[in-house]
Amino acid sequence: MSSNKMVIANGRFLVPGSEKPVLSGYMTIENDLITYIGEEKPVIEEGTVTLDGSRLLFMPGLVNTHGHAAMSLLRGYGDDMVLQAWLQEKMWPMEEKFTGDDVYWGTSLSVLEMLKGGTTTFLDMYDHMDRVAEVVEHSGIRAVLMRGVIGLCPEEVQNQKLAEAVAFARNWHGKADGRITSMISPHAPYTCPPDFFMRFVQAAHDLDLPMHTHMSETLREVEQNAADYGLRPVAHLEKLGMFTRPSLIAHGVHLNDEEIEILARHKVGVSHNPGSNLKLASGVARVPELLRAGVKVSLGTDGAASNNNLDMFEEMRLAALIHKGVSGDPTAVPAPEALLMATQYGAESVFLNQVGRLAAGMKADFIAIDIDQPHLLPHSDLLSHAVYSASAKDVEHVWVNGKQVVKHGQCLTLDEEKIRRKAQETFEGLLKR
Amino acid sequence: MSSNKMVIANGRFLVPGSEKPVLSGYMTIENDLITYIGEEKPVIEEGTVTLDGSRLLFMPGLVNTHGHAAMSLLRGYGDDMVLQAWLQEKMWPMEEKFTGDDVYWGTSLSVLEMLKGGTTTFLDMYDHMDRVAEVVEHSGIRAVLMRGVIGLCPEEVQNQKLAEAVAFARNWHGKADGRITSMISPHAPYTCPPDFFMRFVQAAHDLDLPMHTHMSETLREVEQNAADYGLRPVAHLEKLGMFTRPSLIAHGVHLNDEEIEILARHKVGVSHNPGSNLKLASGVARVPELLRAGVKVSLGTDGAASNNNLDMFEEMRLAALIHKGVSGDPTAVPAPEALLMATQYGAESVFLNQVGRLAAGMKADFIAIDIDQPHLLPHSDLLSHAVYSASAKDVEHVWVNGKQVVKHGQCLTLDEEKIRRKAQETFEGLLKR
Repeated sequence: MSSNKMVIANGRFLVPGSEKPVLSGYMTIENDLITYIGEEKPVIEEGTVTLDGSRLLFMPGLVNTHGHAAMSLLRGYGDDMVLQAWLQEKMWPMEEKFTGDDVYWGTSLSVLEMLKGGTTTFLDMYDHMDRVAEVVEHSGIRAVLMRGVIGLCPEEVQNQKLAEAVAFARNWHGKADGRITSMISPHAPYTCPPDFFMRFVQAAHDLDLPMHTHMSETLREVEQNAADYGLRPVAHLEKLGMFTRPSLIAHGVHLNDEEIEILARHKVGVSHNPGSNLKLASGVARVPELLRAGVKVSLGTDGAASNNNLDMFEEMRLAALIHKGVSGDPTAVPAPEALLMATQYGAESVFLNQVGRLAAGMKADFIAIDIDQPHLLPHSDLLSHAVYSASAKDVEHVWVNGKQVVKHGQCLTLDEEKIRRKAQETFEGLLKR
Repeated sequence: MSSNKMVIANGRFLVPGSEKPVLSGYMTIENDLITYIGEEKPVIEEGTVTLDGSRLLFMPGLVNTHGHAAMSLLRGYGDDMVLQAWLQEKMWPMEEKFTGDDVYWGTSLSVLEMLKGGTTTFLDMYDHMDRVAEVVEHSGIRAVLMRGVIGLCPEEVQNQKLAEAVAFARNWHGKADGRITSMISPHAPYTCPPDFFMRFVQAAHDLDLPMHTHMSETLREVEQNAADYGLRPVAHLEKLGMFTRPSLIAHGVHLNDEEIEILARHKVGVSHNPGSNLKLASGVARVPELLRAGVKVSLGTDGAASNNNLDMFEEMRLAALIHKGVSGDPTAVPAPEALLMATQYGAESVFLNQVGRLAAGMKADFIAIDIDQPHLLPHSDLLSHAVYSASAKDVEHVWVNGKQVVKHGQCLTLDEEKIRRKAQETFEGLLKR
């Protein structure tokens, strides 16, 4: 059986954390794996596909560790509003109307945007997840999918939702050539009563899956948790047993020192969503402190309705910029750290240990950006340019699991024209329903 | 004499501040002016050039009110450093070597980036300004140019620099079909001793030109000013007479209530540079308070070495995002206000009252972005998309003074290939000198 092999020649490759973070040389891909990366030219057998990398910068694909893909349908539908009004008057009434088809087209729009923008793995917590999985399956992207459950409902509805979440994880974990994995995801401590939350912990144990939830996004929610349960959210979730499972929490904006210490001790990851946290005025997460305490911090876009795009380069840059400005320390979150947050730490945070780095033995999830452009010149420090100067639209090529899914900026796996038309139609339809 | 006329049909046009901020209709351009904009179809004479605007969103060209264009040569050459080390070890030793040719190529690189990214007017404060003016002249961009003078030098050098600044303003103000205007610009109160600063004020009176300077960018500089002169920078500049001239200050990060009141009273504009202020850890300017006090706040990129790009969409988004996150108020700097800061307020801040809006009688400085893209769908609120979702690379066409300078993303007036090559060569040459 002949293997599917490609060699990239004369490329520049980002390997943050290593001695030479911008490596000039070669990378070999066989089937779904990177089999070689180094300065020395490998032996290239006759007939092997060779790609000239000389105008390109290769990086690990970006990993978006928190979001709600279908919410791209509500992009720009309500901005600059107080959170409760935005949710109650704008988001929830529209989301209530979402059918499986709506979720399918909203997710398609988001996956198209993410792939073209260099995101090769995304976490999605939403409803109608079978339809999300369908999009993942045929788009070629990698995803960590879970039914997010809000438990403010009668017990039989709770039971049904939990059963759905479990069934989804059971059906889809490991599917699509292993590109789909799953987690167990109660929506948040303030939307899932303690007893109900604990049933998710049990389910995660039963299925041997990690857990994900929203936590401490707003100050109000933290105060409410303390009022309702006598504990701040971290101690509350610790008590409910969540951290007996490998866990990732989204946001973590309002954390005190003790809470950071608890998260570090249990190796709980934090998905930092700087764009969404700023836009919704939730605040600025204590990222430098989290990193110093050894907490794995990754990056997420959240839904496009509170961002308002899914450009992970922008999240990476925001993470590198805002903590400097707010702390007064220009060395806070330096560029290599921001890049690691968007790649390796992201992959590790969603428990994909073969993704997020360019190294032999890793899955071939990588992207190439066109560096021969005015805003990326001169070529002083290409890692700096990737973090501080580039954007989603600089992405030229994208590979996931060894398969090229974007070529010269065009998505090879999705019908872009159709998705654009359907997204607009779906939004207009929702307005009328 | 036949006039040069064009009609844009079936377009969407951003007119922030008016009742319908997204207008669907038509716009007519004759020579260098917008002569009509409205929902009703105008009479179109036979032979008039018509542009189908149906996949495009038209906006005023973006106005970048503070920067040092040639510094793009130092993009990525030193990041994540403490300000003084960055200046003393990285920027100043390199800038000292800059020749007129270096400034010419660095400025060419920046103007190319700005035009392609939808910036139609930029303010530039630097040295070798004749070479900057050359680039402006043949690129077709609009610019407000000034020799920025650092006065920490012997008196005869001070005299020579001041004479240069005056000669430049005299020679170039109103040139290039009026696309070049000038201001008088002592670099900063901490780099120009009071007596010397006052000679600039006098020169500005003599030439009847406005003034520009850096002010209160860092806390340290404010404290130093108080220690040296017994006054904080605003009162100090007021005392030196700067505000008897129409004035624009750059940064204004550290301002107390009294200072904001003084700036408002004298109608002094503030060029807010959020990207640079965050990256250099200078802090977060009190933009909501400035706007509430009636101060005209515009947006600048600062030099690309501290940004690290010249994407004014990014500055607009940062301005809309960070003040929400830091203040806790999601209604702070709403999208229309951020757009005004990047356009109309910018033009007014650099004293160009015929630029910055799409309206009959205004100069035809405008841009079109391609809105039929995944990250700009659905078309819920195109003004929101322009601020929260778009980037420089979404710019499809650019016109300045009625002349098209970018078409389908390609610059029509500059030799991009040559500029890219020269920028890289110049940087490499600087490293070796």
